[in-house]
Amino acid sequence: MNTIGHSFKLTTFGESHGVAIGGIIDGCPSQLKLDFNFIDSELCRRKTAQTATASQRKESDQIEWLSGLLDGVTLGTPIAFLVRNEDAKSEDYEALKKVYRPSHADFTYEQKYGIRDWRGGGRASARTTLPIVVAGAIAKQILKEKDIKVFAEVAYMGDVEQARNEGDTVGGIVECRITGAPAGLGEPMFGKFSAELAHAMFSLPAVKGFEIGDGFALAKMKGSEANDTFIKRDGKITTLTNHSGGIQGGITNGNDIVFRVAFKPIPSLAMPQQSVNRAGKPCEIAIDGRHDVCALPRAVVLVEALAAMVTEDGLLRL
Amino acid sequence: MNTIGHSFKLTTFGESHGVAIGGIIDGCPSQLKLDFNFIDSELCRRKTAQTATASQRKESDQIEWLSGLLDGVTLGTPIAFLVRNEDAKSEDYEALKKVYRPSHADFTYEQKYGIRDWRGGGRASARTTLPIVVAGAIAKQILKEKDIKVFAEVAYMGDVEQARNEGDTVGGIVECRITGAPAGLGEPMFGKFSAELAHAMFSLPAVKGFEIGDGFALAKMKGSEANDTFIKRDGKITTLTNHSGGIQGGITNGNDIVFRVAFKPIPSLAMPQQSVNRAGKPCEIAIDGRHDVCALPRAVVLVEALAAMVTEDGLLRL
Amino acid sequence: MNTIGHSFKLTTFGESHGVAIGGIIDGCPSQLKLDFNFIDSELCRRKTAQTATASQRKESDQIEWLSGLLDGVTLGTPIAFLVRNEDAKSEDYEALKKVYRPSHADFTYEQKYGIRDWRGGGRASARTTLPIVVAGAIAKQILKEKDIKVFAEVAYMGDVEQARNEGDTVGGIVECRITGAPAGLGEPMFGKFSAELAHAMFSLPAVKGFEIGDGFALAKMKGSEANDTFIKRDGKITTLTNHSGGIQGGITNGNDIVFRVAFKPIPSLAMPQQSVNRAGKPCEIAIDGRHDVCALPRAVVLVEALAAMVTEDGLLRL
Amino acid sequence: MNTIGHSFKLTTFGESHGVAIGGIIDGCPSQLKLDFNFIDSELCRRKTAQTATASQRKESDQIEWLSGLLDGVTLGTPIAFLVRNEDAKSEDYEALKKVYRPSHADFTYEQKYGIRDWRGGGRASARTTLPIVVAGAIAKQILKEKDIKVFAEVAYMGDVEQARNEGDTVGGIVECRITGAPAGLGEPMFGKFSAELAHAMFSLPAVKGFEIGDGFALAKMKGSEANDTFIKRDGKITTLTNHSGGIQGGITNGNDIVFRVAFKPIPSLAMPQQSVNRAGKPCEIAIDGRHDVCALPRAVVLVEALAAMVTEDGLLRL
Repeated sequence: MNTIGHSFKLTTFGESHGVAIGGIIDGCPSQLKLDFNFIDSELCRRKTAQTATASQRKESDQIEWLSGLLDGVTLGTPIAFLVRNEDAKSEDYEALKKVYRPSHADFTYEQKYGIRDWRGGGRASARTTLPIVVAGAIAKQILKEKDIKVFAEVAYMGDVEQARNEGDTVGGIVECRITGAPAGLGEPMFGKFSAELAHAMFSLPAVKGFEIGDGFALAKMKGSEANDTFIKRDGKITTLTNHSGGIQGGITNGNDIVFRVAFKPIPSLAMPQQSVNRAGKPCEIAIDGRHDVCALPRAVVLVEALAAMVTEDGLLRL
Repeated sequence: MNTIGHSFKLTTFGESHGVAIGGIIDGCPSQLKLDFNFIDSELCRRKTAQTATASQRKESDQIEWLSGLLDGVTLGTPIAFLVRNEDAKSEDYEALKKVYRPSHADFTYEQKYGIRDWRGGGRASARTTLPIVVAGAIAKQILKEKDIKVFAEVAYMGDVEQARNEGDTVGGIVECRITGAPAGLGEPMFGKFSAELAHAMFSLPAVKGFEIGDGFALAKMKGSEANDTFIKRDGKITTLTNHSGGIQGGITNGNDIVFRVAFKPIPSLAMPQQSVNRAGKPCEIAIDGRHDVCALPRAVVLVEALAAMVTEDGLLRL
Repeated sequence: MNTIGHSFKLTTFGESHGVAIGGIIDGCPSQLKLDFNFIDSELCRRKTAQTATASQRKESDQIEWLSGLLDGVTLGTPIAFLVRNEDAKSEDYEALKKVYRPSHADFTYEQKYGIRDWRGGGRASARTTLPIVVAGAIAKQILKEKDIKVFAEVAYMGDVEQARNEGDTVGGIVECRITGAPAGLGEPMFGKFSAELAHAMFSLPAVKGFEIGDGFALAKMKGSEANDTFIKRDGKITTLTNHSGGIQGGITNGNDIVFRVAFKPIPSLAMPQQSVNRAGKPCEIAIDGRHDVCALPRAVVLVEALAAMVTEDGLLRL
Repeated sequence: MNTIGHSFKLTTFGESHGVAIGGIIDGCPSQLKLDFNFIDSELCRRKTAQTATASQRKESDQIEWLSGLLDGVTLGTPIAFLVRNEDAKSEDYEALKKVYRPSHADFTYEQKYGIRDWRGGGRASARTTLPIVVAGAIAKQILKEKDIKVFAEVAYMGDVEQARNEGDTVGGIVECRITGAPAGLGEPMFGKFSAELAHAMFSLPAVKGFEIGDGFALAKMKGSEANDTFIKRDGKITTLTNHSGGIQGGITNGNDIVFRVAFKPIPSLAMPQQSVNRAGKPCEIAIDGRHDVCALPRAVVLVEALAAMVTEDGLLRL
């Protein structure tokens, strides 16, 4: 279950403080000259320490390309890549080895596997999303040639500077728009484009909500308000409004695909918190590691990346 | 893409006014004596015409069991079943043959396949959710033996009687709670339990939003408000609050799993609406067919059914 | 695991003496006018009682089409169908209820599931291959429009009439040839076209061997004998010989795809055999049911059907 | 399609002369202390230049473990690893850049992808089987704890030294036996254990035939000769003979699982061969690269590795 996609697929590996993070992309078309500068620039958007909201881990995030390429051109075979974990200070986490950080995955991983990599969040760390950015950048490059664009932005974010002063964190909402995608993406019943997007977004850490078009607001509308009237415009059938967010019956209708993703606040707080250790004994923790106050700025590129991957995956199955 | 599940799987078939609706359940344990009365009672919960909100199609919804059973006991082989479409009045839909009903799947199906079954919504009809209820009832029976319960209810619904008088429709929100599920369900990265639930719920017609635990509200909280403090209670580690909705790092923590699903209003309105026909020519339509004013009452059992299937599917992979 | 195919998929259900046998075809292109006469004629090729080698079960094998069609034209949605089991004489099998027939699946099913449908072989009966013929016939129809043909024949069969007199059975070998398939089918590593064919053929009951091109004979050749020299013929690069059976590196090269499938003799013998019952107590059995002396004549259409399905599946992923 | 397995999964990457070869193992149980010495010793069995039959490429085949481990113990998360390609002399292949080597994958890859990595066979090189050995060694370690053993040997091999003198190559047959596996592995219809094994073995380069138990010889037997009589021995029901190779109805019966795999001769010959270049122009080639005379000795460990993986995969789904 470390693979996403049906035709354009990404399988990822890596723990936060392990040797490396990386992935294998399967299903990328052959004969594509990869735009490495673009991929690096996308990684920069995700990288730690770039904004006022972010933590202080310093990683060069240099991609090593392992396979699937000949002189930078895709062969149609799997593209493997990795990024080494350089600035991993596991000693920061020694104190957390036997403690369950509140609303982290420490407890659930240990329940599931009987063991966990306690160093920096292990497999549940936000760092493990790096391969998604790489695959997403390649998907975006492919989409660009088809005039399809994916653009996300922060729609809501808590007050970062106040939270920082209080040793607290904040959450927020990312809104994403896919333009230029054709009608017909997605499949009836259990392959709906909306379901594929929802599945992809809930694969990101801290995601707790997802809505398409007017989403939860639609639940409070009447049908006469919510319906999108069909019209003919520029010789093409489209809709006057887009409450549906570009998806009807689970299949895209050619309009902009619009959705929102809710992120809970980062659970690692600088302020002291109550918790228990493995034995269930109460303890107080304050997390010293290098952590963001808010994941939103770096979540934007992740939402875009997954949206691009889901779109390219859908296109390959048209 | 007409299959859901990895280990406990349902593949469905059928159009609203075709010969029959049905499915194949693969992965049901052997030697289970099916509770046919319970399955029928679940179908009753879904059936049309049962409440003030519902439409007037009359179907006996008699299940024909085709395989996988010996004297009512499961063999471990695929369980196939069907329900015939008896009360299908296709002539009601003749007028809609060449018209795209607003916010229906008419247009998108035709864009995708170049053809559509215009009779009663075809494959996109709410009637095609019937097999989900059957598979869900079996999943619930299995879960019951493990003391796991799934319970959904309407958390919000628009004013039905007013809408009916106006020829309009309303949407709403269903909340669901899974109790008794063990910690450890779900898998890291792309197999998160939250992602599996989201995918399942977005497979239902008219779903436009999904949130786990406090969901979108979490985006507006601080970390110190959103975090669930671990405590020891009755010799077991659990959390004091359940903002996370029972899922942390994508894996269940043993608490109640709580989520909400937003349904848009039914798009078929009795009142006149503007639309276009296949040629893009404007036209006015008023839909005479037997339609609900609100899908919520019958959506409840569907939400439960899918939640039960996802849970049993997760348990099989523990 | 009752599904075959990645894009052109068949999920089957049914036991020999259950209510019905059938399947769901997912991935069939839309707007195809099904040739029902051809499908029926393919079913006739499989049907019991047609030749000197065959058993005496009489089934009308009338297909009920359940979904996916509008006026006989495919909608792109799943095509479900069933055939009822009419002439099932379960009482013939009463004596075998607690006995394991030698080299049958009685013992292994019971070990796996703790229960088995003892009536006529249950899920392991040759009758359960019927849905393969239906899906194969549709695949053949699709391939025909692309000038691709699939043709199988009996390459070896034991002496049927002698075996019949002795209450014995015989096995044999079916050879199959796919002509007109393009180069490029199949994928590197674990999606080789040869591997897909092998997997499909070993899904048939009684299959014990499979070879591509010169197969096992290649193991005894030198490279200079086994290699297929490339030449240019009619402006196209092809090979002088076809020891490879049309597949090199797991991918088709445009030549005829040629393979052979070895079937063991039918294990149900009219002559007395030693066995044990559930308790492990020795007993003698002679099987009175209606059984073939040789499965080969009806295996031919099954081999063709699966070959056609694998080919169409590969074409959809080109 | 670079992934094998359903629960115990391996995804591989890499070209012969690319940066590295490697893979991701998903589904390995947590808390297993990996036996790195054993894995290395298995790699040694595969490594080039080890016997009289083998080529002269020198690779240290040092595994870099990238993820999924904490102090050598599995975390339950994906285990990624790579081996760098050190001794890749691409210049040896310059002459072959535009020529199709007979019975190699040069032509088919180019037809499929419009591009190929001409250096040393690229993705179709035997070197790409290395990750299979690594995953197989881990599977063997897991099986060993369950008293299941996998043992393969060369059952037939052509005259190597004569072939070497003639600049020719030879093929052969590997026989494999799995002992200690329980009854019940494999699933009806399209998940038969025999089909899974066949699929796995045909994933190896140069495989052209596969048979279970007495295989092709069964096609020439009578039922009375081919059937395996059930007996009770040591309080357990088993069979007197094992013509079936441990599999009946596609499901294991608890006996040894026995199968044979036919390998064609290596197609790279030292002697001159006729071929054509990309333009279809005839040319003569003699391959100077470092190549084996016979792949059999190193194929043995590959057959064992895949057999172990398929067995562990089946056990996880029991």
